[in-house]
Amino acid sequence: MAEFFPEIPTIQYEGPESKNPLAYKHYNPDEIIEGQSMKDLFRFSVCYWHTFRGTGSDPFGAGTLQRPWDDGSDSIENALKRVDVAFEFITKLGVPFYCWHDRDVAPEGSTLKESHANFDKIAARLKEKQDETGAKLLWGTANLFSHPRYMHGAATSCNADVYAYAASQVKKAIEVTYQLGGENYVFWGGREGYMNLYNTDMNRELDHLAKFMHMAHDHAKSIGFDGQFLFEPKPKEPTKHQYDFDAAACLNFIGRNGLDGIVKLNIETNHATLAGHSMMHELEYARIHDALGSIDANTGDMLLGWDTDQFPTDIYLTTQMMLVILKQNGLGTGGTNFDAKVRRESFEPIDLFHAHIGGMDAFARGAKVAAAIRKDGLLDEFVKQRYSSFDSGVGAKIEDGSATFADLEAYMLEKGEADANTSGRQEYLENLVNQYL
Amino acid sequence: MAEFFPEIPTIQYEGPESKNPLAYKHYNPDEIIEGQSMKDLFRFSVCYWHTFRGTGSDPFGAGTLQRPWDDGSDSIENALKRVDVAFEFITKLGVPFYCWHDRDVAPEGSTLKESHANFDKIAARLKEKQDETGAKLLWGTANLFSHPRYMHGAATSCNADVYAYAASQVKKAIEVTYQLGGENYVFWGGREGYMNLYNTDMNRELDHLAKFMHMAHDHAKSIGFDGQFLFEPKPKEPTKHQYDFDAAACLNFIGRNGLDGIVKLNIETNHATLAGHSMMHELEYARIHDALGSIDANTGDMLLGWDTDQFPTDIYLTTQMMLVILKQNGLGTGGTNFDAKVRRESFEPIDLFHAHIGGMDAFARGAKVAAAIRKDGLLDEFVKQRYSSFDSGVGAKIEDGSATFADLEAYMLEKGEADANTSGRQEYLENLVNQYL
Amino acid sequence: MAEFFPEIPTIQYEGPESKNPLAYKHYNPDEIIEGQSMKDLFRFSVCYWHTFRGTGSDPFGAGTLQRPWDDGSDSIENALKRVDVAFEFITKLGVPFYCWHDRDVAPEGSTLKESHANFDKIAARLKEKQDETGAKLLWGTANLFSHPRYMHGAATSCNADVYAYAASQVKKAIEVTYQLGGENYVFWGGREGYMNLYNTDMNRELDHLAKFMHMAHDHAKSIGFDGQFLFEPKPKEPTKHQYDFDAAACLNFIGRNGLDGIVKLNIETNHATLAGHSMMHELEYARIHDALGSIDANTGDMLLGWDTDQFPTDIYLTTQMMLVILKQNGLGTGGTNFDAKVRRESFEPIDLFHAHIGGMDAFARGAKVAAAIRKDGLLDEFVKQRYSSFDSGVGAKIEDGSATFADLEAYMLEKGEADANTSGRQEYLENLVNQYL
Amino acid sequence: MAEFFPEIPTIQYEGPESKNPLAYKHYNPDEIIEGQSMKDLFRFSVCYWHTFRGTGSDPFGAGTLQRPWDDGSDSIENALKRVDVAFEFITKLGVPFYCWHDRDVAPEGSTLKESHANFDKIAARLKEKQDETGAKLLWGTANLFSHPRYMHGAATSCNADVYAYAASQVKKAIEVTYQLGGENYVFWGGREGYMNLYNTDMNRELDHLAKFMHMAHDHAKSIGFDGQFLFEPKPKEPTKHQYDFDAAACLNFIGRNGLDGIVKLNIETNHATLAGHSMMHELEYARIHDALGSIDANTGDMLLGWDTDQFPTDIYLTTQMMLVILKQNGLGTGGTNFDAKVRRESFEPIDLFHAHIGGMDAFARGAKVAAAIRKDGLLDEFVKQRYSSFDSGVGAKIEDGSATFADLEAYMLEKGEADANTSGRQEYLENLVNQYL
Repeated sequence: MAEFFPEIPTIQYEGPESKNPLAYKHYNPDEIIEGQSMKDLFRFSVCYWHTFRGTGSDPFGAGTLQRPWDDGSDSIENALKRVDVAFEFITKLGVPFYCWHDRDVAPEGSTLKESHANFDKIAARLKEKQDETGAKLLWGTANLFSHPRYMHGAATSCNADVYAYAASQVKKAIEVTYQLGGENYVFWGGREGYMNLYNTDMNRELDHLAKFMHMAHDHAKSIGFDGQFLFEPKPKEPTKHQYDFDAAACLNFIGRNGLDGIVKLNIETNHATLAGHSMMHELEYARIHDALGSIDANTGDMLLGWDTDQFPTDIYLTTQMMLVILKQNGLGTGGTNFDAKVRRESFEPIDLFHAHIGGMDAFARGAKVAAAIRKDGLLDEFVKQRYSSFDSGVGAKIEDGSATFADLEAYMLEKGEADANTSGRQEYLENLVNQYL
Repeated sequence: MAEFFPEIPTIQYEGPESKNPLAYKHYNPDEIIEGQSMKDLFRFSVCYWHTFRGTGSDPFGAGTLQRPWDDGSDSIENALKRVDVAFEFITKLGVPFYCWHDRDVAPEGSTLKESHANFDKIAARLKEKQDETGAKLLWGTANLFSHPRYMHGAATSCNADVYAYAASQVKKAIEVTYQLGGENYVFWGGREGYMNLYNTDMNRELDHLAKFMHMAHDHAKSIGFDGQFLFEPKPKEPTKHQYDFDAAACLNFIGRNGLDGIVKLNIETNHATLAGHSMMHELEYARIHDALGSIDANTGDMLLGWDTDQFPTDIYLTTQMMLVILKQNGLGTGGTNFDAKVRRESFEPIDLFHAHIGGMDAFARGAKVAAAIRKDGLLDEFVKQRYSSFDSGVGAKIEDGSATFADLEAYMLEKGEADANTSGRQEYLENLVNQYL
Repeated sequence: MAEFFPEIPTIQYEGPESKNPLAYKHYNPDEIIEGQSMKDLFRFSVCYWHTFRGTGSDPFGAGTLQRPWDDGSDSIENALKRVDVAFEFITKLGVPFYCWHDRDVAPEGSTLKESHANFDKIAARLKEKQDETGAKLLWGTANLFSHPRYMHGAATSCNADVYAYAASQVKKAIEVTYQLGGENYVFWGGREGYMNLYNTDMNRELDHLAKFMHMAHDHAKSIGFDGQFLFEPKPKEPTKHQYDFDAAACLNFIGRNGLDGIVKLNIETNHATLAGHSMMHELEYARIHDALGSIDANTGDMLLGWDTDQFPTDIYLTTQMMLVILKQNGLGTGGTNFDAKVRRESFEPIDLFHAHIGGMDAFARGAKVAAAIRKDGLLDEFVKQRYSSFDSGVGAKIEDGSATFADLEAYMLEKGEADANTSGRQEYLENLVNQYL
Repeated sequence: MAEFFPEIPTIQYEGPESKNPLAYKHYNPDEIIEGQSMKDLFRFSVCYWHTFRGTGSDPFGAGTLQRPWDDGSDSIENALKRVDVAFEFITKLGVPFYCWHDRDVAPEGSTLKESHANFDKIAARLKEKQDETGAKLLWGTANLFSHPRYMHGAATSCNADVYAYAASQVKKAIEVTYQLGGENYVFWGGREGYMNLYNTDMNRELDHLAKFMHMAHDHAKSIGFDGQFLFEPKPKEPTKHQYDFDAAACLNFIGRNGLDGIVKLNIETNHATLAGHSMMHELEYARIHDALGSIDANTGDMLLGWDTDQFPTDIYLTTQMMLVILKQNGLGTGGTNFDAKVRRESFEPIDLFHAHIGGMDAFARGAKVAAAIRKDGLLDEFVKQRYSSFDSGVGAKIEDGSATFADLEAYMLEKGEADANTSGRQEYLENLVNQYL
């Protein structure tokens, strides 16, 4: 079979001293971190949309990316060829997973029926390549935002037909995910929000969205798909306001609509920061709500106000992420999906390799740093000690629910003033973390 | 009795043509808007902290405000005198409500007991002046952030003694609110959040906060106080992250901790925008969750990243707010509290009058514009029409819960493509609203 | 000739009471504001790119806009037809000016020569239509950002050939501007900035940019074009950092590269706010540097971090803009160009009319408010009085340059403390402005 | 003499493996980086205001910091004692420089004369301690923002008396800086900006500010002080808009007011990011304008919109800074001043040590990384190669100024299309930098 990246070797682990840009210096799939291999800990995934459908276009300019294998058409033939390219890429990188939107892999037809048929054709090829290479589907999702019909949203569209169309797409996407052994299904609400409140019935839209998720879950059960559903927070862009603003907004929606236990979260770095949160915050907030399902690994530019979806290379970021993820012993059926794109000026195929290698190495370093911090236990011990006044006495009564305001007032009237605080030691702790880098 | 603003007349309504800066041009307390008087619709409130305790200091400079009646001390005498000033001010403005933190009105003592005693003394005077003037207490709250003991938070402090101290303060503040006939009690979590996740146990802190609110509610019931509890969203400042980030975060907390029906929201403009939302969004989001209890009326500067707490004068803002508030026929036991401060360069007492007059007139204009828009019904009709595909056919089945994904797919496979969308007409609607200004 | 908007009447002024959405309620071209007609004061301009080339695509979805006259191709025939559409639109609106990038009006050819030839063909038709309708060219510019060759910038590209190509395009665009009687030429540096400092030589790039502007000016002189050159500030997007960040950055560049007197500024609202400034600030800053040449009239969404280019409808915004513009008695050879686009959900041709009408009416209202404020003189008088200590005594000596630090210290040692300040009265002034709305 | 930090040892370099939090792991004053010792390269400085006058107060709460040596008064005695504390601290850290505002070190008197006298008394003690310890004054400045008289600004106040007062303070501060051998004088315009354009004459204010700087320079010359003047950019806070917004705004002001060669810039990280720039951008922009004089070393929180002034610990930040600073072979008479404060929850004196140690180690690591990158030359070589088309042919003609637009067009008409671009390789370069960490 034709090779699409003939000049690129299969990427190997060569260790930190290697000067070879086409080698892993830190990601060693078999290295054990807290009892599991890096491969199983990260469950890295290549995303189909940015990596195989991205063109480098932006609001101010046309596509730039050289993808010599792609004729630019939406034909089935081109789509099939892209599958081969994708699996060669995934295999050369040694990444165990990939994921897609329906329309990334297969062309939209002129009718829904035709679109379904197209999707089936490509799904068959994806299955073949999965079997051949061992790469697996981390999750599937449906593109409910690119087609003009979705201008007003999909499950929150004001047009019931559009809602029905979206439901049909999601139904099919769940089915194909199931056929391909996908382990999760993601709701990423590209246009589930509003542009302007003057023309919007927020209440009705949110109600429709909840019904949509329940129907999706009901359908999954009916076909035997028991993968995890994931909801992906994002505050804005393309809409002025997305209903999935951040982890808290998603969890409020999930909790109030009977979706606890059905839907977890897929957290993305760039979405976290656009919502005004650190990624570590969003992960920890999701984790304590038992809802941290999977991550979209990328990074934004903190000085820019749109989704730049850059590959993550900041070791502080990956260390903080892994501190949370290791706390829950990994991501379960979720994974670390590179929802990231090369800059449009990085237009050669080799840049795709540099980008993924850099991201994987950054996570590997972050995981090693986080594991070292956790092993030494200084940070954990600091936190434990800091809250120790709740482990006994009045604190324990507060925690076990036996204290009342009257008790606490009596205690404090007697005492007059609270025991002294201890320093938060933020600077010391930041220095401490730096020592592990 | 001494008059503190001898040169300031009692502020009267003089109508839009008046050139008198010390008169209302739009706020006419007896004018009827959708069946209730402006007085009852807005339930305006003067806040004690900014208006009677503000000094004009900022992180870069000392206080500037001339408050000739205030000797700058924390004595009981000074505190009592301030009560007289406050009620003269409130009366001259013709504002029906006021509100406070405990430490705004009464000095902190050297022990909790002494603080309670101080508070009781001032509360007695407040009661007298309420009775004398007819001004009422909209809500009370406790200052759990200014004293150094609260450096790590209050109900989310890592120090159990501090938690107990905070509980004692809130217990007392609820009791005094009750004695003074206050209609609500507000949780404004000045430092309920974190500075750094390295030293923070978010899970434990949130659990403590929920228990705190339940204890507060239990205590209120035990003394017969049935006022509304209100939680006030704010994203950050003074902490890096506040747990009460926005309406969604607060409602997620409320819902998941059994506080639905107990705690509603007090929404503030400047907090909404710092969280990345429009004020109209936060109000509507709260309203559809049946949680819009009260508002803190102010405005921020959209180009600045901290709480500037300016008096609101933008008619677009007040129109949008009143469009939501009129939808639920007012604020119930809540009100419109000017949590706003004069600029530190506006240092004369008369600036306090200009500021409140401007804010009240802005709300009056907004209410009149909103009522006119609602009366003509063009906006409502547009929205109703926009979602009409959900009023019958497949849309109605979606809404009544009888549709499944299989039904919707069958419908759409038959149809092939969704019915055409209609224009969102955002520009037309913005022009339309402008016509009412 | 075929009419493209047969159902749309020529838009007329009908006055504030009109309920006709397809009429001006405030823009009355012949109404006199401070000695000149509204038509001459605003010199409104329709932009070719958004209005005739916009598709409604965004980074998440395909085009949505219905433009039945456009076959979507880049053919000369289609381009010629668009000219007819444009002039019908401009004429029906009664707007006196329009403006373009070279590639908006004429298709790029496969060689530079072919592109020039295409441009010439279309320019001839533009000339005919200008003559026929009386509409004039406000300014021309060159699109140096859409084609992939400009990925690294144009006048700041690291590729000298690209620089030469850009120079050729600008040369031609200046020539066509001149032929069509254009009154200005704009430098809008779409990608003149950088994505990353690791690969950038900022010094060399800025030097190249300065040389580019000088060459442009030299060429203009050589052909007899004496229109005004304008530089347009924008902080970011599409690049991470644009060299034309804001008015100050542009003026620093202009001043340090011998371009004072040659290049003025074209200020855009959405660019001002993305740079962290109010539009009024940027206008006033440009004005006091004698560099306020023209404006791009639009607005951003203060909660979104990208260029939304919405039509301006906020009367506060237009009032503040007109307060500055009236101070310099209008925009000279510049104008008020609607660099604004309808939302992608406002996809019908009629939305283009709503949008422009709303923008023009907003400016008309702003101008009337600003003129009324200026006529009454309260604001001006306040400012004059506020600085009056510099009109005599030690203040006058400071202003005339005769004071030294030693003089000022001697004066103040004698005096001990400065005379008291006066209140800034911000709240009063905001109320005052509100009274004129 | 009494020791104020008896439990703290003199901080020593112990190398990267040390687990001692009170030791330098990377800052080794005698280690040579590109030909100069770390001590001479960084010229670290402790700032008097945050470190010896900070209280931990914030807009929501009182001071928290334990400073047992300080009686909280503004007495001369207390001020003298603080000098001893400061020099013990500086000596124990082994930092070669310190800096101050006039009012940090000496109390404001009830008249200007008394303030001058206070300042003289403290200056004498500072001189003694400098001589005794060898610590030197990096720069002095005047506090023209804390006193209420400066509410409307100092050199841009609308009150001429306040201007004169400010001039007197700066005159004295320059004189004391000179007496103490200070190497620079900084203009940090705490309130040189505006709150609202309605009451502001920007033109007059900027003119006053320029005259102020000239008078300062004239006075310096007259007394023989030839230290460097430095202007410090900051976009906002405490004012809505500061005239010293960013490096570009400052350089525009400097250039247009005849201050080139007289005034350079003092760049601060947190101010850079609040203005929407990376610190690396501001440093490089200043450097290529030959205006990079000194730095205020700190960091902000990219998710917060106010000046948090945290100690810098991010190695990416310090690496990027040192890449620029090493390019100009250090900071000349400038230095690396820790304009940073411990968090208010880090309230013990020992936290001051942790904070400074962490900052110094972060810079040492950044310098070592930057020097290694520079030594290998891969980054420099990449950039050189990237612009090589300007080293010969048409590119060289562009650079030497001999090309005209006509030449460039002729060249490109002949050629038809530009030579292909090369990839910007951003991901590769980010990976490359990561390898040096």
